[in-house]
Amino acid sequence: MFTDMLKNVRKAHPLVHNITNYVTVNDCANALLSLGASPIMADDEEEVEEITAISNALVINIGTLNSRTIKSMILAGRKANQLSIPVVLDPVGAGASKLRTETAFCLLEEVKFSVIRGNISEIKTVGRLSSSTRGVDADISDSIGDDILDKTAEFAVHLSRSTGAVIAVTGAADIVTDSIKTYIIRNGHPMMRRVSGTGCMLSSITGAFIAANAGTVDACAAALCTMGICGETAYENISSRVEGTSSFKTHLIDFMGLIDDNMLEGRARIEAR
Amino acid sequence: MFTDMLKNVRKAHPLVHNITNYVTVNDCANALLSLGASPIMADDEEEVEEITAISNALVINIGTLNSRTIKSMILAGRKANQLSIPVVLDPVGAGASKLRTETAFCLLEEVKFSVIRGNISEIKTVGRLSSSTRGVDADISDSIGDDILDKTAEFAVHLSRSTGAVIAVTGAADIVTDSIKTYIIRNGHPMMRRVSGTGCMLSSITGAFIAANAGTVDACAAALCTMGICGETAYENISSRVEGTSSFKTHLIDFMGLIDDNMLEGRARIEAR
Amino acid sequence: MFTDMLKNVRKAHPLVHNITNYVTVNDCANALLSLGASPIMADDEEEVEEITAISNALVINIGTLNSRTIKSMILAGRKANQLSIPVVLDPVGAGASKLRTETAFCLLEEVKFSVIRGNISEIKTVGRLSSSTRGVDADISDSIGDDILDKTAEFAVHLSRSTGAVIAVTGAADIVTDSIKTYIIRNGHPMMRRVSGTGCMLSSITGAFIAANAGTVDACAAALCTMGICGETAYENISSRVEGTSSFKTHLIDFMGLIDDNMLEGRARIEAR
Repeated sequence: MFTDMLKNVRKAHPLVHNITNYVTVNDCANALLSLGASPIMADDEEEVEEITAISNALVINIGTLNSRTIKSMILAGRKANQLSIPVVLDPVGAGASKLRTETAFCLLEEVKFSVIRGNISEIKTVGRLSSSTRGVDADISDSIGDDILDKTAEFAVHLSRSTGAVIAVTGAADIVTDSIKTYIIRNGHPMMRRVSGTGCMLSSITGAFIAANAGTVDACAAALCTMGICGETAYENISSRVEGTSSFKTHLIDFMGLIDDNMLEGRARIEAR
Repeated sequence: MFTDMLKNVRKAHPLVHNITNYVTVNDCANALLSLGASPIMADDEEEVEEITAISNALVINIGTLNSRTIKSMILAGRKANQLSIPVVLDPVGAGASKLRTETAFCLLEEVKFSVIRGNISEIKTVGRLSSSTRGVDADISDSIGDDILDKTAEFAVHLSRSTGAVIAVTGAADIVTDSIKTYIIRNGHPMMRRVSGTGCMLSSITGAFIAANAGTVDACAAALCTMGICGETAYENISSRVEGTSSFKTHLIDFMGLIDDNMLEGRARIEAR
Repeated sequence: MFTDMLKNVRKAHPLVHNITNYVTVNDCANALLSLGASPIMADDEEEVEEITAISNALVINIGTLNSRTIKSMILAGRKANQLSIPVVLDPVGAGASKLRTETAFCLLEEVKFSVIRGNISEIKTVGRLSSSTRGVDADISDSIGDDILDKTAEFAVHLSRSTGAVIAVTGAADIVTDSIKTYIIRNGHPMMRRVSGTGCMLSSITGAFIAANAGTVDACAAALCTMGICGETAYENISSRVEGTSSFKTHLIDFMGLIDDNMLEGRARIEAR
């Protein structure tokens, strides 16, 4: 179902404008470059509209937001909407502070998003349900077991309808939906949770996938499978006696460049609901 | 003496709020995750108190401070004190500029710290002694040789008494004291000085150790031994012909997750004074 | 031609003050440390002059500039000029937004630079020629083929005359000129373009080379050859089946510490024009 999606990214070489946090920004840049896309980071209100205008996608990540960058996120988002450039929202830590929650709400009012991607805490917050966000990692209670998959998928479908965005909920299993098509994805490896930035990198490469491919929900699913498969192959390539989470991250970003469409198609563990 | 200290970190999985510099912030996040703790980075004055309130420790690192973040450091520190959440100060570069020195003094007046960790230049500055800080690395004249260990330990004891904090002075040998117990630690490897962020990572994991273990001075000593042992094992695992400082850093963070209490106990080179 | 240049860096251990972007700042710090220099990052207007004053070189990189840091760049640059401390400009993304272009112009008016280093888009913008900058990566049309080398070299010579700075244009081939001596350098590997920060790291180590060596144009050429050779050796050391761009970056920074003057002299592919 993902025919040529990676090839399209590498051919289009989309420029992805990231307004993102300073914790994982380097990993986002390198994940995009390894994948075959091109990153640009700019967050000053004096330039974000121009930078968005020359880009093929905009990714807004509220990981280390502040009053200065919140303004820039809104300006860039509106400009992207005007120019029909797709926008991804990563509401990092929504629910952990009023500032993050209210910024997420404000962004949803001001900007039309193509994709909203977060863990279940963040997505529940965005959908105004109560949620106990624990830092920026998903709570253990937020891991998506089979038992709560149905309920979460239903919630995601509702949120997709109300926002018009593809909703991607990532965890032990991922849910992707545009309210019409819903996918469950089971790629990935638990070690991904012990590396900072796997969620942020995923949001950034999602920008590249939807910029280079038609069909946002399928392109978004391809991004999630790609990330998950890179996590699996990274784990397969670490030598556990002397390699740990940092070697794992190196391998993960490496595999962003080594994965091809055959590998994506062959290893994707995705089912339509 | 460190019975179960790593186990306790991995069991408690403490959330550590870091207000830190943008140079080494990613390494701090990944060191905490590799160790088994959970990082959160937030520096806006609108949210730092809430973020501190949900955390198990606060680490304030003045590495790339500015007027905006200094305010946030004070707000977060006071909130932590109100809620009896332990606070670690890393006075990076104190002595190198008036802004850093005065910010360190200001923080010491506004916030009660559980641990103050720095190289000897920084600690001397914090103790208002003259010091020639050379960037953020310890000066060669600041390496702690056996000959000046006694004098430095004495100074640290005084500073511990006046601040009520455990003082950790790191260098060729480390000194940790709460004014009653004083330890000298000789773990580590010289290559750690050729990697950016080993001090910052140490401060961050110290937050995790003191959050998850009773006895701040012993928990702080365990953090220092852990860091030093990870440096030693990282060095043992690089193949010197083709690996250098960047591979070393990868291994170092890897070993944060691979080290266990037996390894910590067995390799710790610590003596009580 | 590069006799003892690396030895001089390692002997002088120059302190390099970087006012730079938050995307690649960690790589700049680690590249400097691996090379044998010492990094310091500080960008608040309250301290940049003091930090510059204790440094041996200043590197101004406009990668994620904002109104706050632009002020600091000017203050630090002027202080460096007063104290005859060499200053390197990396006009990242000049041409991509009015803010970047105008900041580059403003810096050129306020500060005398020893070296200006950028890709051809950025250098053309600095020289007020029209240019289509694509993000912070050089455009494909900007790769320096032999056919346009002459024209670019001529342009660089003019810019060097008008600014008084050594001009370093990096791409498939590099051009370095002080208007009297002009070098063409052909070291490097295409994979360097798929890693974020190779340009930024190069600008930072250029600061170290010119601080520790007499003859700015030769020292700048040595920095470019060193970077290129580290890229080549990094590529030779990745095992292509399972290693990609992130492993490549690790090796590249490793080799900054492993390269010596014999290797630099022996592998440099440089010709005088």
